[in-house]
Amino acid sequence: MENFRFYSPTQFVFGKNTENEVGKLVKKAKANKVLIHYGGGSIIRSGLLGKVEAALKKENIPYILLGGVQPNPRSGLVYQGIDLVKKEAIDFILAVGGGSAIDSAKAIAAGVLYNGDFWDLYDRKARVEKALPVGVILTIPAAGSEASTATVITNENGMLKRGMGSDLLRPVFAIMNPELTFTLPAYQTSAGVVDMMSHIFERYLTHTEGVELTDYLCEATLKSIINAARVVVHDPLNYDARATICWAGTIAHNGFLGVGREEDWSTHGLEHELSALYDVTHGAGLAVMFPAYMKYTVDSDIERYRQLAIRVFGVDDNPNNPKAVALEGIARLESFFNEIGMPLTFEEIGAKKEDIDKLLEKLDINRGFPFGNFQKLSREDARKIYLLAC
Amino acid sequence: MENFRFYSPTQFVFGKNTENEVGKLVKKAKANKVLIHYGGGSIIRSGLLGKVEAALKKENIPYILLGGVQPNPRSGLVYQGIDLVKKEAIDFILAVGGGSAIDSAKAIAAGVLYNGDFWDLYDRKARVEKALPVGVILTIPAAGSEASTATVITNENGMLKRGMGSDLLRPVFAIMNPELTFTLPAYQTSAGVVDMMSHIFERYLTHTEGVELTDYLCEATLKSIINAARVVVHDPLNYDARATICWAGTIAHNGFLGVGREEDWSTHGLEHELSALYDVTHGAGLAVMFPAYMKYTVDSDIERYRQLAIRVFGVDDNPNNPKAVALEGIARLESFFNEIGMPLTFEEIGAKKEDIDKLLEKLDINRGFPFGNFQKLSREDARKIYLLAC
Repeated sequence: MENFRFYSPTQFVFGKNTENEVGKLVKKAKANKVLIHYGGGSIIRSGLLGKVEAALKKENIPYILLGGVQPNPRSGLVYQGIDLVKKEAIDFILAVGGGSAIDSAKAIAAGVLYNGDFWDLYDRKARVEKALPVGVILTIPAAGSEASTATVITNENGMLKRGMGSDLLRPVFAIMNPELTFTLPAYQTSAGVVDMMSHIFERYLTHTEGVELTDYLCEATLKSIINAARVVVHDPLNYDARATICWAGTIAHNGFLGVGREEDWSTHGLEHELSALYDVTHGAGLAVMFPAYMKYTVDSDIERYRQLAIRVFGVDDNPNNPKAVALEGIARLESFFNEIGMPLTFEEIGAKKEDIDKLLEKLDINRGFPFGNFQKLSREDARKIYLLAC
Repeated sequence: MENFRFYSPTQFVFGKNTENEVGKLVKKAKANKVLIHYGGGSIIRSGLLGKVEAALKKENIPYILLGGVQPNPRSGLVYQGIDLVKKEAIDFILAVGGGSAIDSAKAIAAGVLYNGDFWDLYDRKARVEKALPVGVILTIPAAGSEASTATVITNENGMLKRGMGSDLLRPVFAIMNPELTFTLPAYQTSAGVVDMMSHIFERYLTHTEGVELTDYLCEATLKSIINAARVVVHDPLNYDARATICWAGTIAHNGFLGVGREEDWSTHGLEHELSALYDVTHGAGLAVMFPAYMKYTVDSDIERYRQLAIRVFGVDDNPNNPKAVALEGIARLESFFNEIGMPLTFEEIGAKKEDIDKLLEKLDINRGFPFGNFQKLSREDARKIYLLAC
């Protein structure tokens, strides 16, 4: 086990009707004026925005609305948010939505207090030294941004998709009512499931020894997600299954499952270029890329893939042919993704084989070859993984 | 799944040599003057206290020493600590040790800022409204107090052992170097293992439905603890096994494994009277009480005990006789406790059958009959459980 630091100070308020507590939580955070940051009209239609406004009014907390966050959130709205927050002397950002709204809120929270272009923070030119507090009402369990240090923004200037992280960006509270996810479209629910599973795989695929505890915890969370996703596909109003997916998404990415382990994050790198180029849903892109990555790297650590296959996918062991066991686990992962309506190939997400050089070029700019920990990936490795996904 | 709040703001600094970071962490917490609170001479002999003092001196942070914390920490030293902290204008309590030192530090931290007798906070006469910050260097993984809200103190006036909890008492940081536990006596190591397993059992034994995720997480942690304990018994210097026990002890009691579940805590209640009356190590008392409690309550939820038996203790399923499966799981737990040198009967800890009425009397004062959630326990139920442990 490696040395580690773990710090997850977010207060989680989880369950039915918890969105009504937002006023009190914002007040407790000593906010004077709030930016409510969100995406499209779904939170207006569902009545959630009205409830949030009522809760803030009840506590006499003034607020300004800034909607319009897109999936794969853009730099343009972040600049707009930073200007607005400065002009209105706002001191608290409340994200209402999924990972995109939260990531955009984090960018604004850090950007407002950074003396320069906020993109420097994503471009590794500067680090976050301070940030406004961010609160969250989660409506899409997927990215885990409600508890994570991470934020990913796409710069419209060149469509560069970049992530960064800081403990200062962990939300002060996260309100999670699984009922708010009842009306999520099936595709978005499933993409969220793939996203959170991927956050676990990036931690699970490690060569660090002496990490049985976190292995078991990763496997526990993966099994629960799979079981719950299978329920939700047929019964979208199942509270316990929705609740499991919500909480698992948080655990998957608050750092808890990665303590003491060398993590990887290569597949996220490979996928980011897909979603930046084709504006495909991140989780759907990951469903295409993860099985390809796993097949390509299976020889790196057959034993690890064998363990995953047996413990998570219930594959029967075969001591004479561990690789077959490992590959059967990957095949079951693919068939699970297929079962919940996720794509498995470039074609299904509108990506093109001919664009692979373009993807590699962007990868080189954003990550630089070689990258990865579980297996170092050269440009040729990355090309072969993309080809496996075609 | 039930609604829940989860808040674990402690910063964990885990791994080799991390005790040397204590000066910086205390400084970051803006402490002006520190009380170093600890137990006996072991941290002096091991050189740990010297390292801590050097780290504080390096940051020019003044400190006062207060040792002498006993197992089952006493109210007398808490009063002494409160007086000292007031007199010396101390604003930060650093506990160096295990659960006893930390619990005593929490009592001082809350007692200093309470206007009255600190025992009121344990006697349910008042609640913690504020507390000085507490930092921890953990040397005994067991109680999980390094991250929990909880503190348990024994009042020398009547030997009443009482616990209470508050989010305000969660330590601001917890330094955990598994190497500091290499020299723990085998008995103390094993008692710690039982203690942390018991913290999980109290959460695992629930009738709440829709909690598969936390069931799996509880089972994952239990399996890892058992495997690591079996290593440590024979190889006390095994770093990864020691590290697993350290981190599992924290997870077991920071609330994470109980979210959304009705918890129980009856067995802790039954045991507290044992350790208060005979001053027996808490974990050893739990090794005596938990199998007895489980045997007595097995009919409350055979399915739950069956699941524990199969998933944690590897018992083969027998659909025709689930109770036999459940009982076999409890038998394997007993044999595991025995394997790691823990007692299983009253006699082994010097407790007496004739004292059961005395134990029940104290239970009535401290808890009041009936108590418990998994199964409501009357005075007669409690008597029968004590008898099963004889």
